[in-house]
Amino acid sequence: MYKINDNYLKLPGSYLFSTIAKKVSAYTEANPDKKIIRLGIGDVTLPLAPAVIEAMHSAVDEMADAATFRGYAPDLGYEFLRSTIVKNDYEARGVNIAIDEVFISDGAKSDSGNIGDIFAKENRIAVCDPVYPVYVDTNAMAGRTGEYDKDKECWSQVIYMPCTAENNFVPAIPEETPDLIYICCPNNPTGTAMKKEELQTWVDFALTKGAVIIYDAAYEAYISEEDVPHTIYECEGAKKCAIEMRSFSKNAGFTGTRLGFTVIPKELVCDGVSLNSLWARRHGTKFNGAPYIIQRAGEAVYSEEGKKQTKEQIAYYMNNAKIIRDGLTEAGYTVFGGVNAPYIWLKTPDRMTSWEFFDYLLEERNIVGTPGSGFGPSGEGYFRLTAFGSLENTKDAMERIRK
Amino acid sequence: MYKINDNYLKLPGSYLFSTIAKKVSAYTEANPDKKIIRLGIGDVTLPLAPAVIEAMHSAVDEMADAATFRGYAPDLGYEFLRSTIVKNDYEARGVNIAIDEVFISDGAKSDSGNIGDIFAKENRIAVCDPVYPVYVDTNAMAGRTGEYDKDKECWSQVIYMPCTAENNFVPAIPEETPDLIYICCPNNPTGTAMKKEELQTWVDFALTKGAVIIYDAAYEAYISEEDVPHTIYECEGAKKCAIEMRSFSKNAGFTGTRLGFTVIPKELVCDGVSLNSLWARRHGTKFNGAPYIIQRAGEAVYSEEGKKQTKEQIAYYMNNAKIIRDGLTEAGYTVFGGVNAPYIWLKTPDRMTSWEFFDYLLEERNIVGTPGSGFGPSGEGYFRLTAFGSLENTKDAMERIRK
Repeated sequence: MYKINDNYLKLPGSYLFSTIAKKVSAYTEANPDKKIIRLGIGDVTLPLAPAVIEAMHSAVDEMADAATFRGYAPDLGYEFLRSTIVKNDYEARGVNIAIDEVFISDGAKSDSGNIGDIFAKENRIAVCDPVYPVYVDTNAMAGRTGEYDKDKECWSQVIYMPCTAENNFVPAIPEETPDLIYICCPNNPTGTAMKKEELQTWVDFALTKGAVIIYDAAYEAYISEEDVPHTIYECEGAKKCAIEMRSFSKNAGFTGTRLGFTVIPKELVCDGVSLNSLWARRHGTKFNGAPYIIQRAGEAVYSEEGKKQTKEQIAYYMNNAKIIRDGLTEAGYTVFGGVNAPYIWLKTPDRMTSWEFFDYLLEERNIVGTPGSGFGPSGEGYFRLTAFGSLENTKDAMERIRK
Repeated sequence: MYKINDNYLKLPGSYLFSTIAKKVSAYTEANPDKKIIRLGIGDVTLPLAPAVIEAMHSAVDEMADAATFRGYAPDLGYEFLRSTIVKNDYEARGVNIAIDEVFISDGAKSDSGNIGDIFAKENRIAVCDPVYPVYVDTNAMAGRTGEYDKDKECWSQVIYMPCTAENNFVPAIPEETPDLIYICCPNNPTGTAMKKEELQTWVDFALTKGAVIIYDAAYEAYISEEDVPHTIYECEGAKKCAIEMRSFSKNAGFTGTRLGFTVIPKELVCDGVSLNSLWARRHGTKFNGAPYIIQRAGEAVYSEEGKKQTKEQIAYYMNNAKIIRDGLTEAGYTVFGGVNAPYIWLKTPDRMTSWEFFDYLLEERNIVGTPGSGFGPSGEGYFRLTAFGSLENTKDAMERIRK
């Protein structure tokens, strides 16, 4: 008789955003006349940039002609996209990354969920708390997180690194030694970012302890401050200890278009085994490339027009972030983030729990946000709003909150 | 110090098609004047159908307008696509499948590689031999296959079910009891297919033994004989023991466009746990949906025009298959497959090994095929040619072989 992977049964509740969607759907069914403003899930709302649209139309036409039709893509992604990434995201910042150190994928969610495949089950993981739920959930599925304690809302084998107002949302080096350290910077959900010297401390720690940093830089395009690094490879020694993940979801609105990439430097070696070659093997065996049309769309993000247009989109969202920051501050809230990231992280008022505030905001103000506790135990008492709404909705939401 | 998943180190050589690509590339570099005909990898060559192209252009335009822009897709895929699949692939054949039993993905390669995630490591797998390498390789990565014996070219813990000319390429029920049974029908690489009553034997066996059948029906569209089932759910009891995978790669030329789906009936339950819910959790946590544009392309495959156009493509390839069958037979080869599948499986002449014949065909006839032994130990002495070339190249290849 076959057996299931019973690690799945240890997972508490369902995926955070599914739970929110169900709650919102129940409310709107019961109150069809209410206009809901959604500032919950980090989904973009602006249409794709004209340069991207043009590139996709052109790629679709190529697929219509036998002479230009494309079948299976190269395992690691098309060279036209990988070389563009190397040039724009790394060379331009003085970082030397080779083309075959870049792996094109269908997004950072898949990559950050799948990367665990190349590591042994026995590794101990450390995560910022609060954090994007995929890191912990996928490690739980792999049996790497021990048992779940429902009261404490945490796993027995995970090293949680609290990020709260008390430490300015920068995790402290933990007492226990982790093997795999997940860092999301700029951070989702707190909207805060480490300075280069703070990140260097983590790189030094990883090198000393023989740990790997899994660095999720999905929000890199939102960095506005000078001393925040755009890639972990700006830090000395990072190529020997860090894997970097990037996404087109937030810098170019590809949430429904799906494209991302992972960088694994060849210097990242464990007992003589290159992690780059392990990931290449995984990528070539369990994945078959992102669609040609979408890879061309990604390339267009880096064109002169594409850069200009996507920068305007980011400026639009960051203007929303400012409106939320200012609006909440005016209304008496304590607010963080929103400067190097499209997320605003606020302290819930009147000692409400995160889910109490979720219900309050949904029912009394008809605004959907995300409860901080959904991102980890130290997120309790916090709440996330995103800057990805329309300008009009964002202004409306602040009006409703101020009332 | 972190540890890698050392199951990866047990994997022999690199992925079959990467090895072939390297050999071909070395030959063409050394012989730039030779015109190579590629009948190796199962990649399509005809452009996408006009209905598909039209749907993609239209979807791209939707992404250009805020009013019709699509962000994150629903976890399981868009309902427009899932309901179309249910109607055309199942209802039309008298099989009742619910919309939430269908999971849209980026292809059957990913799904067949990832499905192992929801099962315990301890399960024993059985595979047809020869077979598409992804089933065994991904189970090896998960530590499910024991040790690799280089001499015998097989894994200690895998139950191999030989499919050779002796048993007409229909696997016999194995003596040892498997937990997970991989069946690809119509089969890749042998190009042969089980009749409904033969498949029913497997369903009955799985039900008796408490095994799950992972049924890869990627080549379903090529079935031409009446008594070959188009879905395993045509067999009685299959909903209680089978997972079915489908692909748009071969029925509509989506190898570089990437779309597929997996069906997990809710009746498939292990000790009270629904495999459908486990896969839903995996899908929602480690994947973020196929691109909207591509899901619209998939929908168009089922439109009246789309059906007509893709049927013509399949007829084109099956005409190639006939040319290869006839050509090889005329040249004195013993040939199988090519009737319900786009693959022709031939016995190598003069007791040559599969790789010897590969080298011979590449160097003497400038034709690339796939060595049978690359698909498993019982593939030794066989060779695969695909019908996916152009009509002209296919005719040329047969000319070269007849000489």
